[in-house]
Amino acid sequence: MVTVGIIGAGRIGKVHANSICNLVKNARVKTIADPFMNEATEKWAKELGIPQTTKDYRDILQDPEIQAVLICSSTDTHSAISLEAIRAGKHIFCEKPIDHDVSKIREVMQALQGTGLKYQVGFNRRFDHNFAAVQKAVEDGKIGKPQIIKITSRDPEPPCIDYVKVSGGMFLDMTIHDFDMARFLAGCNATEVYVQAGVTVDSAIGEAGDVDTAVITLQMENGAIAVIDNCRKAVYGYDQRAEVFGTKGMVAVSNDTESSAVISGADGVTGDKPLFFFLERYMNAYANEISAFVEAIEKDTDTPIGVEDGLAPVLMGLAAKKSAAEHRPVKISEIMR
Amino acid sequence: MVTVGIIGAGRIGKVHANSICNLVKNARVKTIADPFMNEATEKWAKELGIPQTTKDYRDILQDPEIQAVLICSSTDTHSAISLEAIRAGKHIFCEKPIDHDVSKIREVMQALQGTGLKYQVGFNRRFDHNFAAVQKAVEDGKIGKPQIIKITSRDPEPPCIDYVKVSGGMFLDMTIHDFDMARFLAGCNATEVYVQAGVTVDSAIGEAGDVDTAVITLQMENGAIAVIDNCRKAVYGYDQRAEVFGTKGMVAVSNDTESSAVISGADGVTGDKPLFFFLERYMNAYANEISAFVEAIEKDTDTPIGVEDGLAPVLMGLAAKKSAAEHRPVKISEIMR
Amino acid sequence: MVTVGIIGAGRIGKVHANSICNLVKNARVKTIADPFMNEATEKWAKELGIPQTTKDYRDILQDPEIQAVLICSSTDTHSAISLEAIRAGKHIFCEKPIDHDVSKIREVMQALQGTGLKYQVGFNRRFDHNFAAVQKAVEDGKIGKPQIIKITSRDPEPPCIDYVKVSGGMFLDMTIHDFDMARFLAGCNATEVYVQAGVTVDSAIGEAGDVDTAVITLQMENGAIAVIDNCRKAVYGYDQRAEVFGTKGMVAVSNDTESSAVISGADGVTGDKPLFFFLERYMNAYANEISAFVEAIEKDTDTPIGVEDGLAPVLMGLAAKKSAAEHRPVKISEIMR
Amino acid sequence: MVTVGIIGAGRIGKVHANSICNLVKNARVKTIADPFMNEATEKWAKELGIPQTTKDYRDILQDPEIQAVLICSSTDTHSAISLEAIRAGKHIFCEKPIDHDVSKIREVMQALQGTGLKYQVGFNRRFDHNFAAVQKAVEDGKIGKPQIIKITSRDPEPPCIDYVKVSGGMFLDMTIHDFDMARFLAGCNATEVYVQAGVTVDSAIGEAGDVDTAVITLQMENGAIAVIDNCRKAVYGYDQRAEVFGTKGMVAVSNDTESSAVISGADGVTGDKPLFFFLERYMNAYANEISAFVEAIEKDTDTPIGVEDGLAPVLMGLAAKKSAAEHRPVKISEIMR
Repeated sequence: MVTVGIIGAGRIGKVHANSICNLVKNARVKTIADPFMNEATEKWAKELGIPQTTKDYRDILQDPEIQAVLICSSTDTHSAISLEAIRAGKHIFCEKPIDHDVSKIREVMQALQGTGLKYQVGFNRRFDHNFAAVQKAVEDGKIGKPQIIKITSRDPEPPCIDYVKVSGGMFLDMTIHDFDMARFLAGCNATEVYVQAGVTVDSAIGEAGDVDTAVITLQMENGAIAVIDNCRKAVYGYDQRAEVFGTKGMVAVSNDTESSAVISGADGVTGDKPLFFFLERYMNAYANEISAFVEAIEKDTDTPIGVEDGLAPVLMGLAAKKSAAEHRPVKISEIMR
Repeated sequence: MVTVGIIGAGRIGKVHANSICNLVKNARVKTIADPFMNEATEKWAKELGIPQTTKDYRDILQDPEIQAVLICSSTDTHSAISLEAIRAGKHIFCEKPIDHDVSKIREVMQALQGTGLKYQVGFNRRFDHNFAAVQKAVEDGKIGKPQIIKITSRDPEPPCIDYVKVSGGMFLDMTIHDFDMARFLAGCNATEVYVQAGVTVDSAIGEAGDVDTAVITLQMENGAIAVIDNCRKAVYGYDQRAEVFGTKGMVAVSNDTESSAVISGADGVTGDKPLFFFLERYMNAYANEISAFVEAIEKDTDTPIGVEDGLAPVLMGLAAKKSAAEHRPVKISEIMR
Repeated sequence: MVTVGIIGAGRIGKVHANSICNLVKNARVKTIADPFMNEATEKWAKELGIPQTTKDYRDILQDPEIQAVLICSSTDTHSAISLEAIRAGKHIFCEKPIDHDVSKIREVMQALQGTGLKYQVGFNRRFDHNFAAVQKAVEDGKIGKPQIIKITSRDPEPPCIDYVKVSGGMFLDMTIHDFDMARFLAGCNATEVYVQAGVTVDSAIGEAGDVDTAVITLQMENGAIAVIDNCRKAVYGYDQRAEVFGTKGMVAVSNDTESSAVISGADGVTGDKPLFFFLERYMNAYANEISAFVEAIEKDTDTPIGVEDGLAPVLMGLAAKKSAAEHRPVKISEIMR
Repeated sequence: MVTVGIIGAGRIGKVHANSICNLVKNARVKTIADPFMNEATEKWAKELGIPQTTKDYRDILQDPEIQAVLICSSTDTHSAISLEAIRAGKHIFCEKPIDHDVSKIREVMQALQGTGLKYQVGFNRRFDHNFAAVQKAVEDGKIGKPQIIKITSRDPEPPCIDYVKVSGGMFLDMTIHDFDMARFLAGCNATEVYVQAGVTVDSAIGEAGDVDTAVITLQMENGAIAVIDNCRKAVYGYDQRAEVFGTKGMVAVSNDTESSAVISGADGVTGDKPLFFFLERYMNAYANEISAFVEAIEKDTDTPIGVEDGLAPVLMGLAAKKSAAEHRPVKISEIMR
């Protein structure tokens, strides 16, 4: 049984708390911390069976009974809290991205060395039943050597403009999941990124200096070409698909729906829209990623998504920003310098 | 918060215990009883957070703190324990069927009268996302007036012959779910049953006096014709589909799969088989039915599947047996006499 | 090159004329006959390249150059013209049914004996790409031994009441195709028929002495149970599906659509309705059946659907009528007497 | 009735001859010309009902009865024969591409001016039922303003190396269809092309100076981003799909198959592969494009795919070659200079 503290009681912190209390074996949440801890959250925690709440995450780091922390605070605190948690000897599950600043991610990497502590980054989609099935088909050789990888990732609605202004931009807050997916499905790193992007959803996003629609081409190390298409708004819901084409065939996954009900009427044959957004689509994936983290601690094995897997998509995101700005293909090696 | 006792720690009792501990809000299991209670089950209960175990279900009935019981014991004990539980003033969730003997179900009905106790029968499939969507489409008038209802229900593998000998036969242990589904989708009772059946899976089933394959036609009160096809063995997994055709259209549902992954290769385009069996397919439905039961207790409303809904499918099952034996359509009214 | 005469220039006669002129190799239409031959039809024939038209089908029977006739006249003339054509030494393709009177079909059978003439009945659906694929999967052993056969056959709109009054009833004018399909897919005859039927589309159909909705159960000789569901009206179009379930698996086909376009919008995910009716759905099947007939003549082999295949579905239709009238399962042997 | 001459009796010439003789109304083929005309082709033509064959296409151009020619000869002769045919006063249907040399296409454009002659380019896919449905959904405003267009186009097998060496490269012989499709679906021109390409199928293709796998990004004039993925070899058959995503939704089409039969077995649920190649997939599209050409002549309207639609995809192909060579986005305006 692994005793866990959760740092951050926002949307994703609550998702993980729920998962651990209801769906993850061999783990329990002892404490949840949030600077804005209030009565409603305390009540919620109590009902869920979490014994302690606090405004100060250091209460978690100083608690010798707590073996592992989940860092679910705002992005700009991820690397700093990671470093503190490493010093406190805690295993770490950190929401993505670790940082927008590559040097700070490298600091975390260095701090981890030799500690034997586990570090996992929250790329939950790897644990989705559909994407996991694609990756398994590739790994099992069912489609031969990958040649083309296609990832569609469209949100049902854009975030508020205030978030857009601080998020690091679409490539670092949204596409970063798809960059991870490209690496996951290809089984290797990208070497180059090219972005064709525009503002087709909301001109306010453009005024905030970001784009909302993009097609991103990646040259993968193994010779495959990956292409991601993104949009901040799809009126029919969260569109999350992938396809890998290779020398022996193709594997593809479609969206999940609430039910398989199809109504044939005078006007056409109509089925459900995709599940609305990430909470609906990825609830099981969130539970699965924490289960994997807990298992890595218990069995003392590598986590499935280590700190280096946290670095690579940030490099890709920064290359994408540079590609969009300079309108040319950008090599990952340019960013690593 | 409703405090629950579970009578029977077999497969289905454990399913409900898990649901209540992890997925059902506002309920907790205090005690689980089983005449064969052993160390392994006690350990399992403890890990799940169930405080008490016992060999004697009367410990549950006598516990004033326990408001509701789940009767998950063997079928031949359902009606007797129901009667005892009513006398003890407990709300009851009873696995199907209440009894094979209509008069005993009627005894339970009479005992309930005037008590204000809730009684729910475990027809879990009504709470499956797919079947619920079909029923909702019908209820919302999306397909107009129902004309033809089709239910496919095939198990991945037959039960052992010992079970076949005591189960009451395929119509009462397997088709009973489909009889309930026909009533649920049509929104009314059947008036007549005709069975065309045979032994095509295993001659030992025939030697035990049962059939393993059947097409069952039902005349519904509202003029719709329903047809169920059953088989004890489908090599591709648990086949659970339904379709309602009406004056404004048709609604149909297909099977659930582990993932939507489809592999296109030199030999064809291949997707996942249906989920293997009821534990895989209906896990959420089991949690949902208990949530509905708990809600009916908390809000003091009718349960969605009352004792009369437990009676009707048994009448249909007995009519089906008579139809198979006498090779003619049998009216439900013949059985009610 | 087989020279053909077509008797009857109604809808189906024109379909065959078109097929032969455009899609069937090794055949040409020399003459088309119709008692109501008019200018419009003569113009149509000329444009299609058919050299001769006539009001008298005997012109065709007497033409020594014409080797084969297609009998597309009204149903009540099929058997009489068949007999005449046999006497005239012509190969015959006859639209279904040969006759509603079993003894007249038997007369045709006897007349054919020893003549070496080819006789094919127009059960076009056997030549549909989907149904042919189902049959091939069964024949190739892909699904093992058939256990359950399901056929859905619903028209987009009912025929006019005048037709209903003379057609012989739904079982002989519509279900007859499905009876043939059951035999085709099972690879054997039915031994018994049970009908559950009603009037749910139009009460005028009931007043005309017919039904418009039915579920028909068939016991097949090989132990499989077949079930057909029929309705005279499906608002979403011509619904023509089949499924065969067996010891090694299941094969199923869905409807054809105009395109595979699927629109995902705010209100759902919508695709095309099934193709509207038989002319849209079965145009290729009509060409294929004539090609098979021509090939049987050229290669002097049996036609794929002989006169005995014309008899069996009529027996099933008469058994169905008797089952509906007497509300009991009726053996085919009762009809054969 | 339009009288047609076909120049070139290779594969595509024969396809058109067949279409006109069997499926296209109001047109007839009088003469077919081919420098390698032989007995087999003469026999084929005769059986099809084509009265004349010749080795010299000038026999067609000089025949005053022939109103229109189909140029189905080798690509390097398209523009020259176009010019001759214009001088001879014939309407022209020309297989794609008109020429690899932009200046020669412009010569044809100039020669056409003021003649009133119809000119249509053979981009058959616009007449495919699926792609036409996508375009219609876009045009009808069903998906709002297009934002992302995705085209998948993969051949089942690569052409022979000798063809690769003279074809102008993958972008001009294969992707050219997809460039046309992007314009068709977007309803506007591209302004910029970026290519990420490689050799993943056969190193001999690379040695011949070409690529066999590519992801091509297009900036469209209306703000949409289009992306094409190509491969010379897909083991599962001809993969021809498209998807347009816009402000009100998405429309997508999948591949056509031989049948809708799906077999559910112990190893999975398997359906047909896509139709093998263009002859199987696009046979109706070939007939439809000629029907449209004939209709434009008869009604004296514009052809649906004029000479300027023949130029644009060649510009895109040349931009793609330059992008691949210089590894940067290339504007169409760079090529037009």
